[in-house]
Amino acid sequence: MRQSSLITTALLAMVSFATVACSDATEEKTAAATPAAATTAPVAAPALPTDIPEGMGVLPTSVPVPADNPQTAEKVELGKKLYFEPALSKSGNFSCNSCHNLGTGGVDNQQFSIGHKWQRGGRNAPTVLNAAFWSAQFWDGRAPLLEDQAKGPPLNPVEMSSMSEATVVARLNEAGYAPLFESVFGKVSLNYDNMAKAIAAFERTLITPDAPFDLYLQGKGDISEAAKRGMQKSAEVGCTSCHSGPLFTNNSFQKFAYGTDAGVKSVTGKDEDDHLFRVQSWRNVALTAPYFHDGAVKTLDEAVRIMARTQLDTELSDADSADIVEFLKTLTGKQPEVTFPVLPRPEGHALTWSD
Amino acid sequence: MRQSSLITTALLAMVSFATVACSDATEEKTAAATPAAATTAPVAAPALPTDIPEGMGVLPTSVPVPADNPQTAEKVELGKKLYFEPALSKSGNFSCNSCHNLGTGGVDNQQFSIGHKWQRGGRNAPTVLNAAFWSAQFWDGRAPLLEDQAKGPPLNPVEMSSMSEATVVARLNEAGYAPLFESVFGKVSLNYDNMAKAIAAFERTLITPDAPFDLYLQGKGDISEAAKRGMQKSAEVGCTSCHSGPLFTNNSFQKFAYGTDAGVKSVTGKDEDDHLFRVQSWRNVALTAPYFHDGAVKTLDEAVRIMARTQLDTELSDADSADIVEFLKTLTGKQPEVTFPVLPRPEGHALTWSD
Repeated sequence: MRQSSLITTALLAMVSFATVACSDATEEKTAAATPAAATTAPVAAPALPTDIPEGMGVLPTSVPVPADNPQTAEKVELGKKLYFEPALSKSGNFSCNSCHNLGTGGVDNQQFSIGHKWQRGGRNAPTVLNAAFWSAQFWDGRAPLLEDQAKGPPLNPVEMSSMSEATVVARLNEAGYAPLFESVFGKVSLNYDNMAKAIAAFERTLITPDAPFDLYLQGKGDISEAAKRGMQKSAEVGCTSCHSGPLFTNNSFQKFAYGTDAGVKSVTGKDEDDHLFRVQSWRNVALTAPYFHDGAVKTLDEAVRIMARTQLDTELSDADSADIVEFLKTLTGKQPEVTFPVLPRPEGHALTWSD
Repeated sequence: MRQSSLITTALLAMVSFATVACSDATEEKTAAATPAAATTAPVAAPALPTDIPEGMGVLPTSVPVPADNPQTAEKVELGKKLYFEPALSKSGNFSCNSCHNLGTGGVDNQQFSIGHKWQRGGRNAPTVLNAAFWSAQFWDGRAPLLEDQAKGPPLNPVEMSSMSEATVVARLNEAGYAPLFESVFGKVSLNYDNMAKAIAAFERTLITPDAPFDLYLQGKGDISEAAKRGMQKSAEVGCTSCHSGPLFTNNSFQKFAYGTDAGVKSVTGKDEDDHLFRVQSWRNVALTAPYFHDGAVKTLDEAVRIMARTQLDTELSDADSADIVEFLKTLTGKQPEVTFPVLPRPEGHALTWSD
């Protein structure tokens, strides 16, 4: 396993983390996500399954939280407003939720997201769901924390395209955010760093527990025989050497000999980082098509086969691939239940947008 | 007062209406909107104000409902999903909420909304809030009912730009909406008409009660002295001959000798309809800048002065205009509290979008 210096940084950053229960300090609840997430209440409590492959487990109920950005209910609420805030974008057209839509698995299901003036990004938008668990953000891990990631899109010229941190802060100020920031962060605290902290705090509530697989593990529900076969098969062929543990990712960076994107090397410039990408979680993967960093793979079945071929030198049979897909579908958790925020706005005049 | 044949149609349509209490058949609640909507609880119950200009009143608590589209909780919930559904758009980028954002007064605060491939519409997006009360929809009233209005944007080439009703229905079917429609409308009921009915049912829940003015009228709160002067002044100069009643619109069409847009004439082709527009409500007007059908007027103060000048031949003093604006700000009601919907999606593959 090769890891870049970026990962070391990310792991070091974890040292100062506390963890909080996901339900702490937030009103956000979870709601039944899709028909796939619904389970039938068992007639009698079934025996706990005994044949679970090593390492697989129930999604944790607490997330790591940086020591300098503790969760509070008020901060989460502010972060939610900012997450849905089109004023982060130059045009007033895009919020975080535009590409990381909480109604559709935390993604937009586009190959490449639509950004400012209909430009397209260069990588597939990853889901925000459970992102609090990752060791680093972005496909190439260039942002150690959610706080770092949140600062990117508002200024990215093909995404929200705001001119500068100062521009964003000025617009939030005009919208009427200053008192909300001061209530959370203290006096004269409306700034870009705190904006990112609030968004990150909200994102730490976007956890998807109680997937059918989790309920199955706890004796609270069942999954299909095909899914059970897929669970065994995924371990047998070696998928779970990287897609391991309750998160179904070991949070490492791995060489993915696919496509032309240089991955981590595009950040570090080092040959040793060529085609390294952060291992993606399987959690909610049935909702996040199309697949891979280039979004070029349209179906989960095809994605599974390509991964087996390139990473494990294995040609999956139709039956095995179908079983693994059935298993992956059991990892769709309950989606966050979010009350749509009412955003602060000046009275009697509009904010200024431009192309 | 001149009214077009369109209005007659709209009023006839009202005959078959029932009304329902706004809180019926829906989980949607209302939440404090903006600082302006907050009121201080009185120490003792104040006397009811006695000097309210004729016709002004508390926002009704029930909305007209067409006999062929009764409200049900399940239909409202389906309509909410569709309201937030980017699959109505060809690109997968726009939902109803993109331009009629429930976080920002039911509008996008753009002069002209951004649509497919960054095209701009030709008229300012009106608010969806309280639209259930209007006699007709669109600035030119070309849609008698919310059901008619909802069918427009998905197919409008500069808005959502879907190719046909069949295309939209096929995409909703692929997303997994068929069972939801069948539960609400019966077997084989996923069609464009029912889509519009469900959206309209949801929109009928988007009512904004308890504006400071409403609380003042009921002896539950107070408004500023400036607002009280503005209230009297607006009646005195004649604004409320059209912006009348609890809705602050008499739901008529009036000649607005402003700009180059022909208004109702652009629909009927009749000279008598030239520059006729539906009288806009003052409810939540402080949130819906920029103003007028061309969105060219940036401030409420300027909008008030232009209206007084063109419609009433009155030049308002700075003080009177400021007072009227203060009054208008008291008409911002509690904004609907909406739980963000989780949308149906196929598992393991994405819907197909295109430019």
